[in-house]
Amino acid sequence: MTDKIKVGIMGATGLVGQEFVRLLKDHPFFKIEFLTASEVSSGKAYKDAVKWMLDETIPQEVENMTVIKTQVDEILKTGVKVIFSALPSRIALQIERDLRNSGYYIFSNSSAYRMNPEVPVLIPEVNYEHVKLIEVQRERYQGFIVTNSNCAVSGLAMALKPLYDEFGIEEVTVSTYQSISGAGLGGLYAMDISGNLIPFIEGEEEKIEQETRKILGRLSDSKVKQIPLKINASCCRVPVRRGHLESVVVKLKKEADLITIKEILQSFKGVPQNLKLPTAPDNPLVVLEERDRPQPVLDIFTGSPQRAKGMAVTIGRLRGEKKVFKFFLLANNTVRGAAGASVLNAELAYAEGIFNSNGGSHG
Amino acid sequence: MTDKIKVGIMGATGLVGQEFVRLLKDHPFFKIEFLTASEVSSGKAYKDAVKWMLDETIPQEVENMTVIKTQVDEILKTGVKVIFSALPSRIALQIERDLRNSGYYIFSNSSAYRMNPEVPVLIPEVNYEHVKLIEVQRERYQGFIVTNSNCAVSGLAMALKPLYDEFGIEEVTVSTYQSISGAGLGGLYAMDISGNLIPFIEGEEEKIEQETRKILGRLSDSKVKQIPLKINASCCRVPVRRGHLESVVVKLKKEADLITIKEILQSFKGVPQNLKLPTAPDNPLVVLEERDRPQPVLDIFTGSPQRAKGMAVTIGRLRGEKKVFKFFLLANNTVRGAAGASVLNAELAYAEGIFNSNGGSHG
Amino acid sequence: MTDKIKVGIMGATGLVGQEFVRLLKDHPFFKIEFLTASEVSSGKAYKDAVKWMLDETIPQEVENMTVIKTQVDEILKTGVKVIFSALPSRIALQIERDLRNSGYYIFSNSSAYRMNPEVPVLIPEVNYEHVKLIEVQRERYQGFIVTNSNCAVSGLAMALKPLYDEFGIEEVTVSTYQSISGAGLGGLYAMDISGNLIPFIEGEEEKIEQETRKILGRLSDSKVKQIPLKINASCCRVPVRRGHLESVVVKLKKEADLITIKEILQSFKGVPQNLKLPTAPDNPLVVLEERDRPQPVLDIFTGSPQRAKGMAVTIGRLRGEKKVFKFFLLANNTVRGAAGASVLNAELAYAEGIFNSNGGSHG
Amino acid sequence: MTDKIKVGIMGATGLVGQEFVRLLKDHPFFKIEFLTASEVSSGKAYKDAVKWMLDETIPQEVENMTVIKTQVDEILKTGVKVIFSALPSRIALQIERDLRNSGYYIFSNSSAYRMNPEVPVLIPEVNYEHVKLIEVQRERYQGFIVTNSNCAVSGLAMALKPLYDEFGIEEVTVSTYQSISGAGLGGLYAMDISGNLIPFIEGEEEKIEQETRKILGRLSDSKVKQIPLKINASCCRVPVRRGHLESVVVKLKKEADLITIKEILQSFKGVPQNLKLPTAPDNPLVVLEERDRPQPVLDIFTGSPQRAKGMAVTIGRLRGEKKVFKFFLLANNTVRGAAGASVLNAELAYAEGIFNSNGGSHG
Repeated sequence: MTDKIKVGIMGATGLVGQEFVRLLKDHPFFKIEFLTASEVSSGKAYKDAVKWMLDETIPQEVENMTVIKTQVDEILKTGVKVIFSALPSRIALQIERDLRNSGYYIFSNSSAYRMNPEVPVLIPEVNYEHVKLIEVQRERYQGFIVTNSNCAVSGLAMALKPLYDEFGIEEVTVSTYQSISGAGLGGLYAMDISGNLIPFIEGEEEKIEQETRKILGRLSDSKVKQIPLKINASCCRVPVRRGHLESVVVKLKKEADLITIKEILQSFKGVPQNLKLPTAPDNPLVVLEERDRPQPVLDIFTGSPQRAKGMAVTIGRLRGEKKVFKFFLLANNTVRGAAGASVLNAELAYAEGIFNSNGGSHG
Repeated sequence: MTDKIKVGIMGATGLVGQEFVRLLKDHPFFKIEFLTASEVSSGKAYKDAVKWMLDETIPQEVENMTVIKTQVDEILKTGVKVIFSALPSRIALQIERDLRNSGYYIFSNSSAYRMNPEVPVLIPEVNYEHVKLIEVQRERYQGFIVTNSNCAVSGLAMALKPLYDEFGIEEVTVSTYQSISGAGLGGLYAMDISGNLIPFIEGEEEKIEQETRKILGRLSDSKVKQIPLKINASCCRVPVRRGHLESVVVKLKKEADLITIKEILQSFKGVPQNLKLPTAPDNPLVVLEERDRPQPVLDIFTGSPQRAKGMAVTIGRLRGEKKVFKFFLLANNTVRGAAGASVLNAELAYAEGIFNSNGGSHG
Repeated sequence: MTDKIKVGIMGATGLVGQEFVRLLKDHPFFKIEFLTASEVSSGKAYKDAVKWMLDETIPQEVENMTVIKTQVDEILKTGVKVIFSALPSRIALQIERDLRNSGYYIFSNSSAYRMNPEVPVLIPEVNYEHVKLIEVQRERYQGFIVTNSNCAVSGLAMALKPLYDEFGIEEVTVSTYQSISGAGLGGLYAMDISGNLIPFIEGEEEKIEQETRKILGRLSDSKVKQIPLKINASCCRVPVRRGHLESVVVKLKKEADLITIKEILQSFKGVPQNLKLPTAPDNPLVVLEERDRPQPVLDIFTGSPQRAKGMAVTIGRLRGEKKVFKFFLLANNTVRGAAGASVLNAELAYAEGIFNSNGGSHG
Repeated sequence: MTDKIKVGIMGATGLVGQEFVRLLKDHPFFKIEFLTASEVSSGKAYKDAVKWMLDETIPQEVENMTVIKTQVDEILKTGVKVIFSALPSRIALQIERDLRNSGYYIFSNSSAYRMNPEVPVLIPEVNYEHVKLIEVQRERYQGFIVTNSNCAVSGLAMALKPLYDEFGIEEVTVSTYQSISGAGLGGLYAMDISGNLIPFIEGEEEKIEQETRKILGRLSDSKVKQIPLKINASCCRVPVRRGHLESVVVKLKKEADLITIKEILQSFKGVPQNLKLPTAPDNPLVVLEERDRPQPVLDIFTGSPQRAKGMAVTIGRLRGEKKVFKFFLLANNTVRGAAGASVLNAELAYAEGIFNSNGGSHG
């Protein structure tokens, strides 16, 4: 039996950090070795530093782990090379680069390096081949950064991928219904969003447009060539705790029929399914037949097996004809749109043997 | 001084009925003479029959008025010819027709007759000329039905009108964020929508597509010729009490620039403004400059003077270039999207002298 | 290995019915054999009849089970004697009695028979001895009815029990903050409770006062002698999806100190813990130290092991001195306050051998 | 005709500051001369500095008023002596004292000086005589501070007053349901309170107990003698935007009957009603007969005339017998519980001629 790879989590007390902790608990490949947080939390037991928000209780294996400060030298002391990052972008910018340059492997939810040409925005079902950018980075820095996409992009890119491959896409118009958890624990005041809608999320529409073009892009000469897809994105915050719903209109390049579209979406699979990665859902896209789905309260935990709960994107109200098709999709923003996405990326790296060649430190 | 026109309200205990009561209180043209409701409420004082939901208290002039049953013969007994209808469509279907055929004037929020070729879906700022259908009906039936649009259509049609006139419109894509009040007092269970999103409202997308085409249509041969506008509508219920927000993408036929678009929207006015109708807002479209508006909690009561509160449609996040422009709009669904719209229609009819020619019964 | 007892669930499509299904899935003692619902649902596969609201997906073992009609003769045909009831009281009144009189064993969440002197309102940690009423009923009817308490009573009775035994209680004042799920799937309209408070729940204050007195009562002569405890209950519905919070002030008969009170609550255990019943939480009462707990979103799933999630009552803000102590308590209203409570009662009956003596039908 | 008194508002951009602006607009006694805010807002036009949250639009008379910094020397420059304070307590502590010592008249919503023996916590309907403390302060400092009570105290003290006078009160137990606006615009994060309950508000229970004892106290030797009333207060934040609901149990010293209690509450009036002060509601306590009231969404704007909307406290579900009576009460926390309360206090001072003796600066 193989030893588990030791991993650390940076920014472990935030909402995405908590999801990392939950998803990495009892993980078949990984074992949590350290947790970091800002200065006020460092030195405390994790259970005292965190305001735990998840339904499952704090895993016993970490509740008394002493939180260390999110600082390069503190982390270097641990010698643990595989690191999940739930840091805010402005903090991630320096730390993630420094750690990479020190030979560390960063699986990051931060947006800091997503649009960096060397760094993949990896959704293994969609752009598996971008994993090659890991080797590009390792040659230059020994370490590497792999990012997951923005929380509103993950579901969209996954739904577009099979349509793009089969029919080509002329244009996408998307309006989002993004839950408050997307802003983090302290991102929104109650008086602003309670019983209200805020039709603006800073930088979000640009991220949807840019990241989607990059994710769907082809690798050529060790670079991602973005596709020239036209995307109209409009983002709105809604008073819902979890789950990002999106209203999508896709214009295809070729005509299609509804039944085919549905089959293509429902049967979409990729490398993680072939490799049976632990966090990979059997069906990355689940098309719901009910006339009023997906709904956040009912559908954000879609995904099987158990470890893949929240990793499947649900699609509903699929309608249209010829070249124009419409649907709503729902993604669990802190799982498939954040922590779960990076865990899946790390599982892929593990399965690809990337941690073997003097990679991760085994426990 | 002219006597006020006596009016009745059918379906006066529902949410839209309550708005009718509020808007017709102390009205310079109209005076409430009767209120109807279903059998269980009839015979009661209005204040005992209604579950009053509005911030302003029940007007003294109606609180002790005895509610009559929503039945043609009961209403005929009153001899009051100008009637506002907040009835459900299935009930309106027969009663509104019977009353019209008895020579009554119906200003209806019901969808029952909206797509009937003789009946205008009137938004006086947008399609003033459709008022001529009133004469067409009067010739045939003595009475007439004038409808206001669906609650999600009113704001959209108003925002599209000046763009359509100036640049032509190729295609509209709209995703709605519709508040629970749009479903009426008993339209949604709390467990279904509380902290949740429901991406389906029965018949709503069809209404948006059809009614908008009719409202923007030209009158020819006493018929409305619908415009062939392509509209992609996707409707979603959100856990907000009042106000319908919409994310809109408009493709124009001609190129435009953002400043012009903004000016055209902001300066949009119509007949109600020229006539200074009591419920007409000074500016039917109010373009907000803040980066995160409109918001239901902050903006649903936009409109001046006082009597026109909630009658202005707010537009924000206006952006785009060339032929594609995007914005969010917000309409007060029970005011501009329902009761206020029909009150404005009746004010227009009053100003046009339609009630004079042996029309309304004066008090 | 013992065969599992076959069980049925009446009212299986409602919210409490769904919790029964979830809790009885893979149960070590029980196996679901039939599900009933009202006429419109009968004949359908369970997954088509139910609007499934729980985070966990519909158990495979029941998703295609054909729902039968909630009718005595339909149920008698199954021959399955152990039945969980999530029926509304007015329906339960006749069916539960008829089934009991036919020799069936009913574990009911309905309030229909709670105050019946032959029927126990059983919370095994609190009034284990009331289980004797089962024998009293069996002698008379062959079958029996065992009820769980009202959803707002379960947590209160559990918190009061150890204080009552140790110090005596002079008076209890309780104000509730009850979630919308307590009213069932169709119990509240969104426009009534969204962003609002409703300080009235029909019959609830009476239930709190009466059921608590019965639960804490002693058995004597095969009857429960209610205690004469003074209870001031005030009930309010709040816009929260799950969990009933209660603000409690207890006046003891003897003086106590805060540390002792805390210890007594935290260490409270009963027969289910001794018997290690599957759904029994290790600690029925969990005293939280944080200054702002318990909170529904954070604490309703308290309870270990896994199968007992939601079965522990959390207590926080414990304060007071001498004879007056104050605290907030939180109970998961559909688990400890409903389905979980009856499942625990049935587990107790199983452990007591009540199903052996020609009792349950083994699978 | 008398000139209006010039007034200033400190902390004018917060939620209570906005209510001050709204209530002082077109006021028959007062005219807004200056508005203060923190450094980031000073120098801006009010409409650009404020995030306006109220249904009514920003009054024209102040929208372009330049906001000044909340600093003693800035305020002294204005020469405007009558000042409303919506400052946070830690800031109020120094500024209010300095201004008073400079001869200014402060009507404060801050808690900084509420428990100071020289300073009245004034609710003119309840403790009119405490107005004498103004003279006590003026003799010492020329200026004075008058505070309104905590937002959760105002309604309670008003409801208790007539019962206390008539029957004496042995003990009060109160559990609160306090809306998020009570914490101010930035007082609560959405992820903490959305769909949740937080059974803790720092310092609130102590304020309820202490302020109520002071408000109901008698003046003797120029000091308020607190009454020795036993109060059990438990405070909880609920996901409601406006209005504080309270569940109250009162134990009287003498027996009473329900009809008398109701009459005494409903007919309660005081000096503001006798003087017909502009913001005084005709009936300070309004007893509702409906079985499920008061409710925040329906009742927070109770109070007539128009200017007194939100100044009446609604009471419902009145029940009890002998010495124990229970009810729910609702107070508009930003009006009767904050800005409206201080405006009423200033109106009383005006009517008492306190601003005449070289007091306020006339415009």
